[in-house]
Amino acid sequence: MRPSGRNLDEMRPISIETGVTKHAEGSCLIRCGDTHVLCTATIEERVPPFMRNSGQGWVTAEYGMLPRSTSSRMRREATQGKQGGRTVEIQRLIGRSLRAGVDRVALGERQITVDCDVIQADGGTRCASITGGWVALRLAVNKLLKSGALISDPLISNVAAVSCGIYAGQPVLDLDYPEDSEAGVDGNFIMLANGQMIETQMSAEGATYSRPQMNELLDLAEKGVAELVASQNAAVA
Amino acid sequence: MRPSGRNLDEMRPISIETGVTKHAEGSCLIRCGDTHVLCTATIEERVPPFMRNSGQGWVTAEYGMLPRSTSSRMRREATQGKQGGRTVEIQRLIGRSLRAGVDRVALGERQITVDCDVIQADGGTRCASITGGWVALRLAVNKLLKSGALISDPLISNVAAVSCGIYAGQPVLDLDYPEDSEAGVDGNFIMLANGQMIETQMSAEGATYSRPQMNELLDLAEKGVAELVASQNAAVA
Amino acid sequence: MRPSGRNLDEMRPISIETGVTKHAEGSCLIRCGDTHVLCTATIEERVPPFMRNSGQGWVTAEYGMLPRSTSSRMRREATQGKQGGRTVEIQRLIGRSLRAGVDRVALGERQITVDCDVIQADGGTRCASITGGWVALRLAVNKLLKSGALISDPLISNVAAVSCGIYAGQPVLDLDYPEDSEAGVDGNFIMLANGQMIETQMSAEGATYSRPQMNELLDLAEKGVAELVASQNAAVA
Amino acid sequence: MRPSGRNLDEMRPISIETGVTKHAEGSCLIRCGDTHVLCTATIEERVPPFMRNSGQGWVTAEYGMLPRSTSSRMRREATQGKQGGRTVEIQRLIGRSLRAGVDRVALGERQITVDCDVIQADGGTRCASITGGWVALRLAVNKLLKSGALISDPLISNVAAVSCGIYAGQPVLDLDYPEDSEAGVDGNFIMLANGQMIETQMSAEGATYSRPQMNELLDLAEKGVAELVASQNAAVA
Amino acid sequence: MRPSGRNLDEMRPISIETGVTKHAEGSCLIRCGDTHVLCTATIEERVPPFMRNSGQGWVTAEYGMLPRSTSSRMRREATQGKQGGRTVEIQRLIGRSLRAGVDRVALGERQITVDCDVIQADGGTRCASITGGWVALRLAVNKLLKSGALISDPLISNVAAVSCGIYAGQPVLDLDYPEDSEAGVDGNFIMLANGQMIETQMSAEGATYSRPQMNELLDLAEKGVAELVASQNAAVA
Amino acid sequence: MRPSGRNLDEMRPISIETGVTKHAEGSCLIRCGDTHVLCTATIEERVPPFMRNSGQGWVTAEYGMLPRSTSSRMRREATQGKQGGRTVEIQRLIGRSLRAGVDRVALGERQITVDCDVIQADGGTRCASITGGWVALRLAVNKLLKSGALISDPLISNVAAVSCGIYAGQPVLDLDYPEDSEAGVDGNFIMLANGQMIETQMSAEGATYSRPQMNELLDLAEKGVAELVASQNAAVA
Repeated sequence: MRPSGRNLDEMRPISIETGVTKHAEGSCLIRCGDTHVLCTATIEERVPPFMRNSGQGWVTAEYGMLPRSTSSRMRREATQGKQGGRTVEIQRLIGRSLRAGVDRVALGERQITVDCDVIQADGGTRCASITGGWVALRLAVNKLLKSGALISDPLISNVAAVSCGIYAGQPVLDLDYPEDSEAGVDGNFIMLANGQMIETQMSAEGATYSRPQMNELLDLAEKGVAELVASQNAAVA
Repeated sequence: MRPSGRNLDEMRPISIETGVTKHAEGSCLIRCGDTHVLCTATIEERVPPFMRNSGQGWVTAEYGMLPRSTSSRMRREATQGKQGGRTVEIQRLIGRSLRAGVDRVALGERQITVDCDVIQADGGTRCASITGGWVALRLAVNKLLKSGALISDPLISNVAAVSCGIYAGQPVLDLDYPEDSEAGVDGNFIMLANGQMIETQMSAEGATYSRPQMNELLDLAEKGVAELVASQNAAVA
Repeated sequence: MRPSGRNLDEMRPISIETGVTKHAEGSCLIRCGDTHVLCTATIEERVPPFMRNSGQGWVTAEYGMLPRSTSSRMRREATQGKQGGRTVEIQRLIGRSLRAGVDRVALGERQITVDCDVIQADGGTRCASITGGWVALRLAVNKLLKSGALISDPLISNVAAVSCGIYAGQPVLDLDYPEDSEAGVDGNFIMLANGQMIETQMSAEGATYSRPQMNELLDLAEKGVAELVASQNAAVA
Repeated sequence: MRPSGRNLDEMRPISIETGVTKHAEGSCLIRCGDTHVLCTATIEERVPPFMRNSGQGWVTAEYGMLPRSTSSRMRREATQGKQGGRTVEIQRLIGRSLRAGVDRVALGERQITVDCDVIQADGGTRCASITGGWVALRLAVNKLLKSGALISDPLISNVAAVSCGIYAGQPVLDLDYPEDSEAGVDGNFIMLANGQMIETQMSAEGATYSRPQMNELLDLAEKGVAELVASQNAAVA
Repeated sequence: MRPSGRNLDEMRPISIETGVTKHAEGSCLIRCGDTHVLCTATIEERVPPFMRNSGQGWVTAEYGMLPRSTSSRMRREATQGKQGGRTVEIQRLIGRSLRAGVDRVALGERQITVDCDVIQADGGTRCASITGGWVALRLAVNKLLKSGALISDPLISNVAAVSCGIYAGQPVLDLDYPEDSEAGVDGNFIMLANGQMIETQMSAEGATYSRPQMNELLDLAEKGVAELVASQNAAVA
Repeated sequence: MRPSGRNLDEMRPISIETGVTKHAEGSCLIRCGDTHVLCTATIEERVPPFMRNSGQGWVTAEYGMLPRSTSSRMRREATQGKQGGRTVEIQRLIGRSLRAGVDRVALGERQITVDCDVIQADGGTRCASITGGWVALRLAVNKLLKSGALISDPLISNVAAVSCGIYAGQPVLDLDYPEDSEAGVDGNFIMLANGQMIETQMSAEGATYSRPQMNELLDLAEKGVAELVASQNAAVA
């Protein structure tokens, strides 16, 4: 029934290749099916003004799509003079989600910026960015631990994200673009490794959803996040 | 236990005054406690380019805060050269939520723009904007029905929104600013009059939430939305 | 002869409601007929860079119109990426006018920002902003005096403004929108309580004016300002 | 008593050189003492959208200062991303003033843009721009008359402008920069050749003015404008 | 003597991987040593306004660097509100260079946009963008030829680019970043496959160059371009 | 054969008038035929952040065109919200070229900004800006030497620039606009007084060039630069 022939609760193949750029403190190329996102983590020994002298660090994120990552070419945001509303929403979500897995006192007064740049898009880019962004963050923090700049690990848990939705009347896991563009209801579910929730965003376009439906999607999401966490752990091992 | 002395499941006093500006096709001033939002609806007999010749109408929203609606003065977005990320997120949410209650074919090729301007802020401005924005929309549509420009009502249902969160370890309904700034978990719940959900946004800042906690908040939200719908209906009667 | 039926030298009804927002140090809603402007004054214990270490304070103003304050909806300046030329002109005028009534040495090195936001427009918004802005300023300064932060009053005099013009060949006081859009000559007259002038702006659109005509408008303006000063004094009493 | 040694009612030497650029339809370099402004008029056979199909033409103006036209270098507005408030105010004034001397029906549906670029500034640049701008406009219109594109002359009258102020307690004509930076009261007076007024802008900085003082300045302005009109007429003869 | 140990006339290893994104009509990832650029070509059946009804096509280019393509993180241009001067210079050069190899009449009224996004930078990104950009362009044109949309090939020749400079007093081919940041003289040489020149840009920073030195660099450039053309041909075969 | 009737190796008449504005530390109006550029040099006793505490000075340049310096009016960059790509390219070139003639250690930690504003354009504005900009720079540095702020001269050599191109199949010196708009190949050649090269930019539009052709243009450029250097020296004598 799904365009890709997947089962309702089946994720797309996940691959996470680490160390893909020589400059970044942490990096990976995450592939969730045909959605490919390059994630890098940059460490800076300073924090934004609102965190100065707080004794705490900061984790933030930026998101972008290459102009031809999509089926028809998008205008480059740099030529439009600003980031669009969707971009701003997504990068705020990525930053918020990653911070939820960080003990910012243990991180100390430094900032880690996670850049997520979509090389190829096929639905679910924000979830792939969070999942891959965490891997880049993990690798950058490992570097700080190895160098002795950090003594104790500030990462409390993995953070991973998956989308679920109601497609053709059925709850499905990990929507690809053909499903996403048709689904009446879809949501993004961001969780820690133990399934505790950090952020839930469900919305209906031309439809509504009931609490039982919401629960079905949450069940799928828990399954998906468990698989993503396993992939993350394999990648950073 | 709540700073305001309210019960855990008690809303702030709601007041919705309609017809507050002489120019707009629909308008109201909604007061949820000390949060005051002026909502206007503007009808235009044209749709944005992406909807032309679709036979469907469009409903969109814009959001703003007066510079001194908050405890310390905010810089005016017009002087900063752009709307901030938070503003963009909120106005997209308002527009999406209101569209969920509209039969856009029945609306015909016209656009209704709902402006929500916060006069005084005390937490929950986006929810108040959706709830009040629906009243302005309802009044503008009534005008089209009365004039004969519309034969059948394009509004499928009320749309209303409330925030709930976990404050001091307890699930509470309709957070005010002192609660909102302390709550580890909070969410915005947007529903139709019958309790079907349109959008759910829950997020944790320095905390996480479990599925039972999420369900408690949903219970509170259903109660709150029912009260808001009653206030809306009284206002437009 | 006037669309409103007023006498040539008759002002619109004035109402000034104070204390309309809980956050601002001073605030009022001024209504000059159907022109309604919300004015707030914000005190900050710092001055702009060009005034630092001068021993003097600063008073500045910002002006905005809600998108649907006008007959047809205006685009929100924040979405246009800048304040328009008219807005900039007006807010510079308001700031300059209010400063003329302030002893800036007595104010000390602090800044008061007066925000004037037009809720509903029917002509004369800049004059209403000055007149109402002064009330907000007065209330904020009273707070400083009461708290002991200021010992002597830095406000030298009331500042009030009124428009006059030549409408249908006749000099008229306090133009409303139907008059303003037809008047060949109109002007804004800003004065202290004693009638001394701070700023005069007269301009002709498709017409010219002679010195006798200018004098007739000044006579009307003196009468109008006296009435506005009485309303200001009543409001802040 | 004046820094320049001029009499109270004495203008700076005026020179108006025409035909200074080969591309523009009309051009002049106006020198009012050490204030030098290059004015060009450009004819386009189209009008802005708001004038289309109105049967009327449009005259507009733009103003700029070269970065080192002033004593210390100003930042170039093109690198700041926008025209400043002062620039916008001035160019709106120039356009409005010039339009007051034009029969826009006689002009027909075409636009004339007058660019006023300050090469060297020593006070009074906006008045010099209006006076010189009118010469450029006159020359461009002459070209249309000569070519037969226009049959009857759309220019009703000369338009010229001069500043006057109260300097060291005395009313003075045509303020230069040392006077302008000290004057408590100053004004710009824009008139037709016959002395009828188009626009009056008087403002006080740290002072006020009475009606008798205003009348003294108007007397001076009438004298100054008469001299400027004579210079304009000599230049275009 | 070179930091990399290369001979003076030795290029870095070149690799050109084609078909790297599923959406673009043509794409490649070019690697010149540690400089990696993703190039995509997008075909649109429309031309920019200045080419409409000219019977000719257009080829243009855009260039960007991922924030962490460099040793320290660069601010994202989309968040800065504009493309920087260096970016604009480079993308204009890429577009101009590629157009030199195109018969735009044969291309017909369509536009091909070549996007060059630097994934990892180690000197020579503009040259790699031109060389890789031509491959993406070639593949996109092949698609048009294969589909029958084009009958005759509009590509006249390969276009390739290489940098040369004077490093430590010696002329060297294909500068990497450590060389580029030290070289007193360096240049970019863009040529057709037959060695005819399209664009030459040589500049000295803290040094100058003579005509014999310029000729030595041109000799090196001819050698380098020949190798690049061979790599291009192998990649598109 | 040339539209102007000049010989192939004949420059346009050059005139350099110095001291044209009273405010700038150095200034000239350079006229290369009908191309007229006003150049000013401003000395500031501070350097940009990236040069602080380096013990070295900085020379930078900005470039602009008056709106009606060209045959049809150009939009003012200040109203477009940014400098265009061509402007940015040119001003970077001017700054780079002038710096090549400066010993920045001898200059000391101060900045000289050269502003080049095109009053009238007829081809070759960037070359005229460099040649005239050097004169303004020379005069400003002379002032520093005369005042004793500098002991030894930081200017190593004159810097001058000329364009050459292939027009109607022939190499020509100093292209004017009719030639420039037709030439298939053209270049800008920036040299020191002794003919050593600082920057070479050659590009082909709809054509290519061989090395012998490049050498012919270099021969012409050497001749042209020698004449420009003589004019510079005469002007500053």
